[in-house]
Amino acid sequence: MSKGITSKKDDYSQWYNDIVIKADLAEHSSVKGCMVIKPYGYSIWEKIQAVLDQKFKDTGHSNAYFPLFIPKSYFSKEAAHVEGFATECAVVTHYRLKNDGNGNIVVDETAKLEEELIVRPTSETIIWNTYRGWIESYRDLPLLINQWANVVRWEMRTRLFLRTTEFLWQEGHTAHATSQEAIEETERMLDVYADFSENWMAVPVVKGKKTPTERFAGALETYCIEALMQDGKALQAGTSHFLGQNFAKAFDVKFTSKEGKLEHVWATSWGVSTRLMGALIMAHSDDAGLVLPPKLAPIQVVIVPIYKGEEDLAKISTFVDELILKLKGLGVSVKYDSRDSQRPGFKFAEYELKGVPIRLAIGGRDMENKTVELARRDTKEKFTVAQEGLDTYIANLLEEIQESIYNKAHQFREEHITEANSYQEFKELLDGKTGFISAHWDGTAETEKQIKEETKATIRCIPLNNKQEDGVCILTGKPSTQRVLFARAY
Amino acid sequence: MSKGITSKKDDYSQWYNDIVIKADLAEHSSVKGCMVIKPYGYSIWEKIQAVLDQKFKDTGHSNAYFPLFIPKSYFSKEAAHVEGFATECAVVTHYRLKNDGNGNIVVDETAKLEEELIVRPTSETIIWNTYRGWIESYRDLPLLINQWANVVRWEMRTRLFLRTTEFLWQEGHTAHATSQEAIEETERMLDVYADFSENWMAVPVVKGKKTPTERFAGALETYCIEALMQDGKALQAGTSHFLGQNFAKAFDVKFTSKEGKLEHVWATSWGVSTRLMGALIMAHSDDAGLVLPPKLAPIQVVIVPIYKGEEDLAKISTFVDELILKLKGLGVSVKYDSRDSQRPGFKFAEYELKGVPIRLAIGGRDMENKTVELARRDTKEKFTVAQEGLDTYIANLLEEIQESIYNKAHQFREEHITEANSYQEFKELLDGKTGFISAHWDGTAETEKQIKEETKATIRCIPLNNKQEDGVCILTGKPSTQRVLFARAY
Repeated sequence: MSKGITSKKDDYSQWYNDIVIKADLAEHSSVKGCMVIKPYGYSIWEKIQAVLDQKFKDTGHSNAYFPLFIPKSYFSKEAAHVEGFATECAVVTHYRLKNDGNGNIVVDETAKLEEELIVRPTSETIIWNTYRGWIESYRDLPLLINQWANVVRWEMRTRLFLRTTEFLWQEGHTAHATSQEAIEETERMLDVYADFSENWMAVPVVKGKKTPTERFAGALETYCIEALMQDGKALQAGTSHFLGQNFAKAFDVKFTSKEGKLEHVWATSWGVSTRLMGALIMAHSDDAGLVLPPKLAPIQVVIVPIYKGEEDLAKISTFVDELILKLKGLGVSVKYDSRDSQRPGFKFAEYELKGVPIRLAIGGRDMENKTVELARRDTKEKFTVAQEGLDTYIANLLEEIQESIYNKAHQFREEHITEANSYQEFKELLDGKTGFISAHWDGTAETEKQIKEETKATIRCIPLNNKQEDGVCILTGKPSTQRVLFARAY
Repeated sequence: MSKGITSKKDDYSQWYNDIVIKADLAEHSSVKGCMVIKPYGYSIWEKIQAVLDQKFKDTGHSNAYFPLFIPKSYFSKEAAHVEGFATECAVVTHYRLKNDGNGNIVVDETAKLEEELIVRPTSETIIWNTYRGWIESYRDLPLLINQWANVVRWEMRTRLFLRTTEFLWQEGHTAHATSQEAIEETERMLDVYADFSENWMAVPVVKGKKTPTERFAGALETYCIEALMQDGKALQAGTSHFLGQNFAKAFDVKFTSKEGKLEHVWATSWGVSTRLMGALIMAHSDDAGLVLPPKLAPIQVVIVPIYKGEEDLAKISTFVDELILKLKGLGVSVKYDSRDSQRPGFKFAEYELKGVPIRLAIGGRDMENKTVELARRDTKEKFTVAQEGLDTYIANLLEEIQESIYNKAHQFREEHITEANSYQEFKELLDGKTGFISAHWDGTAETEKQIKEETKATIRCIPLNNKQEDGVCILTGKPSTQRVLFARAY
């Protein structure tokens, strides 16, 4: 049946957009560049939040909340930082509207702010200005804080979840006594992100470092996890920054060390956003709609009764109610859709579209045979399963599906990392939508820029624990000691 | 010992502020009117959120997310609404900063928005503009949605948690086919708030309706819960609005009824905010610091070892580790503070300040006697308790404390509702900080206004199921059929 989803092969970008809209995940709002996250989409985001939040707490972090607004003067204190964000800032200049006397609501020009306020695009400046009051001695360190918040970066071209003017995210901001501790924290949180991406989202990632050009504005080192989408484009799924003492110096945050010396504090920041939703959708879905890994599916199992009359339905429902209790006991989330306003076929299509991992259909004959019909969303397989022991069967199958979705994405990724040994080869591979290209680079920003301008490919990362090997830069032929990962990216 | 907390009797307002600051709940930020919610304060807010969120889901609501920004033209569509919020709006006018060439970061005047954006003070307008696309038929109703978000209302005089320019809240926005269903929803959510306030926050509330003057801008009826603080002032702890068809008409949201007729949708909205933190702090705390009801305490039990050497500590810790496991099994959150950098007395004061409901101290002699010393935060009682069965003893005691804190607040509230039968009596009661005053009112906005101007007291609510009795208005002597509740309020 047609659900109005464009085929992935015909137009990947439209396919993505169709799924986001048809599966009721999000929509464009009438505010330019801002999206509305619809209830079904938000329920997936809530699951992402819950898992990450627990991981942050397990690694010693606490949540806090800092102001939405940043005075322009603070925002400007770290030179590289303001340079990086200045061109995409929403600026609050007034604090009152008024009726102009003709029934029009207009800005009240007498209520102009002395200093403009920036709607946070990220919170390093306001947070480090606050940390100055919180940190005096080494006993106050490390300071391990996370914030769940909305941020605004004025984007000209936006795409649902992937690039929106306002988005939701978490931003960790930590303070440490030594450079080494801060680097360890940066790496620890990168590992948390990689673990989450691979074991919950079922999206394999490459962990690496960004080149200086691609670093966060104000960071000494930016670590990232890079995922591969089904169209061969890369997607940066999370970043973790070692900020050195840049923000501590800009905001004069010092501490007295154990040795009694006054020193600047070392910083990290790290974040993931609703962009993860885009990665989740694009990594696994197909032309029938969303495919969700069970661990992040708001509904893991949907049960649809196939019945002729009330008596039929009552019998099925008795069985289903008991099954639901057992499944909930195993931590499985179930929906029983016994609406009589829609036919089973309609329901099947709806839950397929919404990516529910397992669908059970139960009719009169199934009740007689003590079986159910089970459909698996990821592989589209259907089979008949005994009612006896069905709860544990389902719990096990959900684990198998989680693993299977990951393995499929992992195999795809592995098949789409290709080595290129000449610029010609590099460009051909790119045009073939080959995914990551592993190639030698001479280490200069000029070469990186020229390749980007000529091919739209960027260096996604220098993988951690990268193999060292002698080679020559694909563009300049200059000597190189390691390959880096290039790709076109979201 | 002195913790630098002003006595409640000397200066209630300063006492409140001291507790918020010293217990590490929040602080003023350098952005005018905005606060920083510190980790300990935020962990209480997280508990509040978790309980409310579950209650919203249990009553059939889903979470979603709508844009932070509202175009000025939408904001202006409902006349009473914009009238109510226009004077306190943060307005975004530009979307870019630039370097002016002299190293100064300035607003880029070439990046001026065609239409100004309002930072949401509440989201009715942007949400109802969205609902127009979501609602076609009676099958799409009821639409039951909640949003957790930050909002901004420009305040000239701010107080931590109680009144801040930016605050965190939840706002429910529901759509219904009939007026009656919408009113039922309004009342259901008021009940949810009252239940939460009384059974989790341990704050008794009066449920009632606001007078027309005090209604939400754009509502036909505003229901509220009103709590009483220890200084005799009232605090509005939550509101639930029946919006009629006002927003549906302003945004042209219609549905086809079962009978095939095109009708405007009926609406409600309801919200509580970080203001609840203020109520929680002010309702129960004392001159030694915060008093928290166990159900919302991030740490319910703290254990402090009193030891002389490592051997001593090891013995105590073995016992404590086992106790912690048992307590966690009973759902009790425990902190074991074995830091050697601080003396027990310092720790006792710290946890008292932070309102931890139960403190255990365990020394060498306790280990010999198989006892612990238990201190109860709310009553400040100390007693010796046997180690055997300690886990269930504590679990039961936490319930008893929860109840006891509520009963104390309830008794206080009951003792502070007084009837006044003349304006003279009314004013004397107010000056005596008597709390709620139950008095006859002639039902006019003029009288309400004059009383407010002369006494700073407002009508907090007309209680639900209010007793009807003949009387005369305390100000005008005109006939009245019921008493209403007056108070000075936060």
